[in-house]
Amino acid sequence: MIIDSHSHVILPVDRHIDLMTKEGIDKTILFSTLVHPETASDYSEYKVEMTRLQKILRGKINPTDSRIKAINELKQIVKNYPDKFIGFGFCPIGLSLAQTDNWINEYVIGNSFKGIGEFTFGEGQVSKVKNVFKSVSSNDKYPLWFHTLYPLTKKDIKELLVLAKKYPNVIVILGHGAGSFWLETLEEIVNLKNVYFDISASFTTHSIKIASELIPERVLFSVDMPYGSPGVMKKIVDESVKDSAVKELILANNIKRLLEI
Amino acid sequence: MIIDSHSHVILPVDRHIDLMTKEGIDKTILFSTLVHPETASDYSEYKVEMTRLQKILRGKINPTDSRIKAINELKQIVKNYPDKFIGFGFCPIGLSLAQTDNWINEYVIGNSFKGIGEFTFGEGQVSKVKNVFKSVSSNDKYPLWFHTLYPLTKKDIKELLVLAKKYPNVIVILGHGAGSFWLETLEEIVNLKNVYFDISASFTTHSIKIASELIPERVLFSVDMPYGSPGVMKKIVDESVKDSAVKELILANNIKRLLEI
Repeated sequence: MIIDSHSHVILPVDRHIDLMTKEGIDKTILFSTLVHPETASDYSEYKVEMTRLQKILRGKINPTDSRIKAINELKQIVKNYPDKFIGFGFCPIGLSLAQTDNWINEYVIGNSFKGIGEFTFGEGQVSKVKNVFKSVSSNDKYPLWFHTLYPLTKKDIKELLVLAKKYPNVIVILGHGAGSFWLETLEEIVNLKNVYFDISASFTTHSIKIASELIPERVLFSVDMPYGSPGVMKKIVDESVKDSAVKELILANNIKRLLEI
Repeated sequence: MIIDSHSHVILPVDRHIDLMTKEGIDKTILFSTLVHPETASDYSEYKVEMTRLQKILRGKINPTDSRIKAINELKQIVKNYPDKFIGFGFCPIGLSLAQTDNWINEYVIGNSFKGIGEFTFGEGQVSKVKNVFKSVSSNDKYPLWFHTLYPLTKKDIKELLVLAKKYPNVIVILGHGAGSFWLETLEEIVNLKNVYFDISASFTTHSIKIASELIPERVLFSVDMPYGSPGVMKKIVDESVKDSAVKELILANNIKRLLEI
């Protein structure tokens, strides 16, 4: 069994499902998206989508409206294909504790999503997620999924791990496995049992080899569609993980256990 | 035909050649290495190699001796297997112009290497490679291969491109395709005909798709062994490049033309 534990909504949905079938992916943990680069047929169209993303991130296009539209798109797909998709719900950062509670109640719990993310923010903004940790710590059912590639720095990742240490009942998924800081991060999370290591966007097989040796029960397979390719990610696991029991953990069992699915 | 345009010496050499044969790689452009993580069988042994690397980079183990030992290791392998390997020679940065000329004469031209690199340095040090550009500009036969992932920043990569613009007859290979800054870098080098885009360590198929659309004659396939896997890199090309003529350029013809091999 293979579960893709992190991909974004790609359109049309049929294309996503066909790809899952072709690649032997049984289920996908689906995240909302503000743009659809997968619909671009060439550089010019890709650039239009990426420029739109920049406009939303800079507030030139209303970000809240865009986020809610994206959440509704995700909600509908998960509702239409409950056997194929499980949703994670977006949550803004920097809100008050009450606002964070309300948002999670309305847009995560209210939509029957199983976790929260993707949290993507700029350098030096980790302190803005404190209230999400506080809110979720009273309800440890909802793992938090963080983008830990650029623009996050080594310092940001360290700060995030301080929060993970402070809230040991909150599950933290390090999306994209801390990028260039994978080795020192792995060494730090060996004893942080609430922190998981997502392998999407990995740029060396060494990170996955060593993660699967140090924390085999906390490594999660994912593709990060549309930015990654299922075939490539499966190949990376095949080349990096030789123990078949560990491979089963990474490809499906770890996320099944975590989300109780 | 497939040419791996960037991998490091891995030991034993027979293992490298067996892997090339198995994966259908006809030739490898080989770079020296200070450490041999491929000989590690687990995390502890890997950590010993990486700690040794840190000691060399911080000068706790004599870096010049280590570099010359690594160059000699490379030279011997290229001499023993001239059909399989072509060497690129290491060159220190921050030397005077005369010292740089001497080094290139002795350790690059003297060893019949075909290019210079890998240049790997910290943030804010691009100005230290000026003399390498000056030295090579009088002899444009020697492409320069730069590591452009972390710790290089967006600003460093921009500075490197300023040098590439100033010395249009010097071939610059952006190793690892500028990492997180791949899109803006590709847009900037479309009209910089002396700048090439290396695909090793890529973390999204989008970068290779768009590079192969914008600058098909300047995209170079490489594995970056021991950090990358030939099977994974071939799969990335298969998934990203659908045009078979462009695929041939990327997998072999671009580097053949560049090095006249």
